[in-house]
Amino acid sequence: MDTRLDKMFFPKSVAVVGASDIPVKWGNLILTSILGWRYEGKVFPVNAKKDTILGLKSYPSLRDIPEDVDLAVFAIPAQFIPEGFRDCAAKGIKAAVVISSGFREIGGEGARLEKEIAEAAHESGLLFIGPNTMGIASAHIAFEALPTPTGPEPGGLAVISQSGNIGLQILKWIAHKNIGLAIYAGTGNETVLKAGDILEYLGSRDEVKAVAMYIEGIDDGRKFAGIAHEVTRKKPVVAIKTGRSQAGSKAAQSHTGSMAGSYATYTAMFRQSGIIQVRTPSELLNVATAATHLPIPRSNRVGIMTMGGGWGIIAADECEDSGLVLPRLPESIIKELDSLLPAYWNRRNPVDVVGEGDPSLYLKVIDALARWDEVDSIIALGIIGRSGYVEDFIAAQERIDGKLYSRELKLSILKDQIRAEDQTISGIAKIQKETNKPIIAVALTEGGLTLADTSHGRVVSVSTPEEAVTIVGHLSWYGSYLEGQKADAFQAV
Amino acid sequence: MDTRLDKMFFPKSVAVVGASDIPVKWGNLILTSILGWRYEGKVFPVNAKKDTILGLKSYPSLRDIPEDVDLAVFAIPAQFIPEGFRDCAAKGIKAAVVISSGFREIGGEGARLEKEIAEAAHESGLLFIGPNTMGIASAHIAFEALPTPTGPEPGGLAVISQSGNIGLQILKWIAHKNIGLAIYAGTGNETVLKAGDILEYLGSRDEVKAVAMYIEGIDDGRKFAGIAHEVTRKKPVVAIKTGRSQAGSKAAQSHTGSMAGSYATYTAMFRQSGIIQVRTPSELLNVATAATHLPIPRSNRVGIMTMGGGWGIIAADECEDSGLVLPRLPESIIKELDSLLPAYWNRRNPVDVVGEGDPSLYLKVIDALARWDEVDSIIALGIIGRSGYVEDFIAAQERIDGKLYSRELKLSILKDQIRAEDQTISGIAKIQKETNKPIIAVALTEGGLTLADTSHGRVVSVSTPEEAVTIVGHLSWYGSYLEGQKADAFQAV
Repeated sequence: MDTRLDKMFFPKSVAVVGASDIPVKWGNLILTSILGWRYEGKVFPVNAKKDTILGLKSYPSLRDIPEDVDLAVFAIPAQFIPEGFRDCAAKGIKAAVVISSGFREIGGEGARLEKEIAEAAHESGLLFIGPNTMGIASAHIAFEALPTPTGPEPGGLAVISQSGNIGLQILKWIAHKNIGLAIYAGTGNETVLKAGDILEYLGSRDEVKAVAMYIEGIDDGRKFAGIAHEVTRKKPVVAIKTGRSQAGSKAAQSHTGSMAGSYATYTAMFRQSGIIQVRTPSELLNVATAATHLPIPRSNRVGIMTMGGGWGIIAADECEDSGLVLPRLPESIIKELDSLLPAYWNRRNPVDVVGEGDPSLYLKVIDALARWDEVDSIIALGIIGRSGYVEDFIAAQERIDGKLYSRELKLSILKDQIRAEDQTISGIAKIQKETNKPIIAVALTEGGLTLADTSHGRVVSVSTPEEAVTIVGHLSWYGSYLEGQKADAFQAV
Repeated sequence: MDTRLDKMFFPKSVAVVGASDIPVKWGNLILTSILGWRYEGKVFPVNAKKDTILGLKSYPSLRDIPEDVDLAVFAIPAQFIPEGFRDCAAKGIKAAVVISSGFREIGGEGARLEKEIAEAAHESGLLFIGPNTMGIASAHIAFEALPTPTGPEPGGLAVISQSGNIGLQILKWIAHKNIGLAIYAGTGNETVLKAGDILEYLGSRDEVKAVAMYIEGIDDGRKFAGIAHEVTRKKPVVAIKTGRSQAGSKAAQSHTGSMAGSYATYTAMFRQSGIIQVRTPSELLNVATAATHLPIPRSNRVGIMTMGGGWGIIAADECEDSGLVLPRLPESIIKELDSLLPAYWNRRNPVDVVGEGDPSLYLKVIDALARWDEVDSIIALGIIGRSGYVEDFIAAQERIDGKLYSRELKLSILKDQIRAEDQTISGIAKIQKETNKPIIAVALTEGGLTLADTSHGRVVSVSTPEEAVTIVGHLSWYGSYLEGQKADAFQAV
């Protein structure tokens, strides 16, 4: 593996060329993002017009920095990049992030300039990402060089994005939802460093548990497929390929200048190399998060528990559309559930637990389904998120009483509900761990994907049955792919 | 129109049979939901074992209430409903909500009991909704009889749900998102009052601007289609029909006992009667909310403005999948935008406004697109929700400084951003009003559908391009349907 990528994503020291103390300027935003987190490496602002920037000594050029520099981040106008690269060569800097735009994406002169810097980098042995990228982040060393400080918690999910705006949006969501990030790479124009190169690198890093990719176009499909095939043996890779429509493909061409290629070709390549293909950025985030934190199911057979009929019907509809199968309940499970549920329970998968019930009932049903040999994933609908309902109830009671209750009283009312939900979530995590089957909860709240941490691992919940089914559908596809690979390997012996 | 429906949804007085002061009991939850809002009608708890409940005098039976009662809400065990209905007859009560379950949905004895109460109601002229419903709400009189107090603001959206759990979840979302509710009706087993009857009633009410329906099954399809055909002339009706899969259809049968019928038959019936058909509950809410607040486009042609290429590509892909058309920009608009955008702008629809830009630039581009004859809807991507990014920036600055900034300083930093966004939203509302074309904004935040109120009307924003396209796709279909109806009427003359 190219050790310059270690310098790029795990730099011990970084210089920001074009650093500025004027907010709104890119050189200020980038430097703020680096300094505003807990990065412990050395940071050197480079700006000839200033002595200090954000409290740090500023250097006239990279050459003037008296210490080693692992990574140079460029936020200066395009025409000054060639000189900056010469400085890198002189200083012995081997890795760079080129935030600057004004290259191939603006046409003629920009394209010429891009060729020039590619050659310069090649000659001096400099590896750079970009240009025209919105930056990178490496959460395990609390390092980010982004136009908007974000600071996600360290975790297992890595993101490669060929669009800066989409990439940053996904990154913000990862931070706000506490999903946990390993590495983020916005690849920009991909002059030298391609999405596939980054994927190969992420495949080699132990802290990366899954990779999410936003792809507009891949130049060397064969090389990329080879890399992907290797990486997906070790960890899930989830990708969205945009530009599948005529209008979208034209828009992609004018965006990063990439040839979009036929969508069907990408789909076939993804399938063959084990990449989970999704259709939208929110699917990308949901599926990649689940792939990071949950066991991978070995088949497409699903058991569903629902609190009320409606959700079960929607989930069953969505399962059929996604190629998931709901096996018929065997007599043994019917008998087991007969002892737990009211006499008129539906005796079908989805299992409707009807009334309000208690968490131990939910967990018994989930446990019975999860231990059932015929299914490899579980979806549990409508059992989380009821504390919001309890809060609404307390608020109504207060209006009737004409007075606000004390915090203690509210907590004591909420306590049972909160305890019940905690118990449910923790129980789900335990069953998930014991059976090694993913259990997705569908909550009543509108917050979308949520992660809960328990002593038995993470539980993923979403807001709607369709989100749960999408996740299970994609994880099952990957699980089946892996089983197929194993079978192939077996036959090859 | 049946005036008993006015008594049901606009009661001047209501009795709660089975009222209780023990939280968790249905009779307590329902009474709390009625009293905990601002309902100005009279409320009479009925419970023979108590003198007062939640501060109100309690009556041994309906017959003992000394004043007129418009509506009786039943939260007592099923076997006592026949007696309750006799009390209604004696008291001259003409409308009832039967929350109680334990009828057809539990099989033999329950089905017999359901037939019995249907006959009793028919004889005494009592109209009831349910049984096995989670209740109703009528926000313009601040009335709700629900198992979870909710209290949504009054507004234009009405909801009919054949699933209590799904209905309540939608209702909570309407309340939390301040979408504004007219009427909610959970129809339960639909012993006498059917979803179609409620739809007809909602069609006649001026405060209802659009109707959202969750449908598992319709018994009299021909009658329903006739009603729908009339209502959709006046206002949009959005529906989800679940049970489209084999597994889902079986689940639906065991849920409310409804015959699901062929999904294709429903789809054909919806199309012919002008009902907008969606696939998931979140689509139902998003599309119905947009239909309540936005102008209906007359065609499927869309203009898109994007802040950065990625979103534009995704939106273009989704448009093509949804049957929406992105017309090519005419020379006149290219010329107009040439004067506003950098020289290398993409000169395509989606229009990429590239850099950060200012709100007046966004609005000029949106205005140019909205006034363009060739399109009837506008999608604006990535221009709302940046204040979250500014907040992250301030937080990073604080960490660098090692001190927390004052609220004043933060506000002054945020002020420009907030003002810019307000200006953008208000400008969008103005253009929307002037051109009578819907403009959907796609924000950077993960909150899903959001409504902003301005002096020029409401602006709908969502979190993802796909949500925006789904809304525009469905509204366009309805607009084309209405245009077709006009053409038919013209030919008939």
